[in-house]
Amino acid sequence: MSASKRLAGEKAIDYVEDGMIVGVGTGSTVAYFIDALARMRDRIGGAVSSSEQSTQHLRGHGIDVLDLNAVGPLPLYVDGADECDPHRRLIKGGGAALTREKIIAEASERFVCIVDPAKQVPVLGRFPLPIEVIPMARSLAARAILAATGGQPVWREGVVTDNGNWILDVHGLSITDPVAMERELNQIPGVVGVGLFARRPADVVIVGGEPPLVL
Amino acid sequence: MSASKRLAGEKAIDYVEDGMIVGVGTGSTVAYFIDALARMRDRIGGAVSSSEQSTQHLRGHGIDVLDLNAVGPLPLYVDGADECDPHRRLIKGGGAALTREKIIAEASERFVCIVDPAKQVPVLGRFPLPIEVIPMARSLAARAILAATGGQPVWREGVVTDNGNWILDVHGLSITDPVAMERELNQIPGVVGVGLFARRPADVVIVGGEPPLVL
Repeated sequence: MSASKRLAGEKAIDYVEDGMIVGVGTGSTVAYFIDALARMRDRIGGAVSSSEQSTQHLRGHGIDVLDLNAVGPLPLYVDGADECDPHRRLIKGGGAALTREKIIAEASERFVCIVDPAKQVPVLGRFPLPIEVIPMARSLAARAILAATGGQPVWREGVVTDNGNWILDVHGLSITDPVAMERELNQIPGVVGVGLFARRPADVVIVGGEPPLVL
Repeated sequence: MSASKRLAGEKAIDYVEDGMIVGVGTGSTVAYFIDALARMRDRIGGAVSSSEQSTQHLRGHGIDVLDLNAVGPLPLYVDGADECDPHRRLIKGGGAALTREKIIAEASERFVCIVDPAKQVPVLGRFPLPIEVIPMARSLAARAILAATGGQPVWREGVVTDNGNWILDVHGLSITDPVAMERELNQIPGVVGVGLFARRPADVVIVGGEPPLVL
């Protein structure tokens, strides 16, 4: 598994061009991408990071981490996923960074998603869907999510996001229309971010292997 | 103006019943409601508050402030508004508490809105529409809000919400379909809360005066 993660992370370097400011996601597959990016750090303009964890990793390699507000639209975003369907729609948020990841994805012209083969599914939902909520809305949002999806929201107790919020993981879903579900969940008061990336899916998916598969 | 605010705030006490846990909003009109509520504090079950400011005011009067997650759905929510249209749809968020206010409104069976006559408008939008955003998404959200509404987002610099986020005030709107605009703004990544209360409008509007007008 870690071999395919490494192969996917290193393949994503093909999309990095000289002078780019690169959006960088979070997770174990992205960590291989950051290691590879470090080898060309003098040729890029810096990075925008989706989490404190990746910020530390990037800075540890001497890569500048910049504020998205200061740099504007990005040419490239590289991130992993917890699940990926054949239309390149994703479930993300196992690492609780989904809201910042979605912000950077939205700001980026090209979103390259790097996964190992186990992340590919015909229909999203086997992986519990993470939803970031304002703490005081936890119970309210859980009731509304159950009503909207039929799934079972479980509080990821003890986890606080980089934005100071909480995570509900929604179990028991089979998401045949992820665009509609994402839209509906976004209407629930207290929901800060939804771990469905369907309205803005990945543009390219790299599945780690020998050789890596590019979808 | 402060006389009509007081009259509206005191009239809302008619909706408080013995034993109720009351949702309490934020602002100068609500402050009169809290003062009136204090006179019957031994007959209510406590309050759920939408802001640190109201929490302090309530506790100063010896009223228990409870966690929404612990109490579940509320029978009554009393709050002000910055604008109110003839369909009891509102703009809120001048005090930057819009997200928590929307959470409590959603959790409440009856939402009683208390305003002075100057808040009544035929069409929402004269008051700039407040939108709470994740700080790193400020520029991205501003671009998307401009594209979605045609309004001009202005950063309320220096203001940090109780959730640790920032406020954009959208100027130059004339909101003829607030339900659609609220739905669309909720789709923008990084938007935490939208100060349009149209999907869930007020159930009752009390306009302060002699006598108060109940809509």
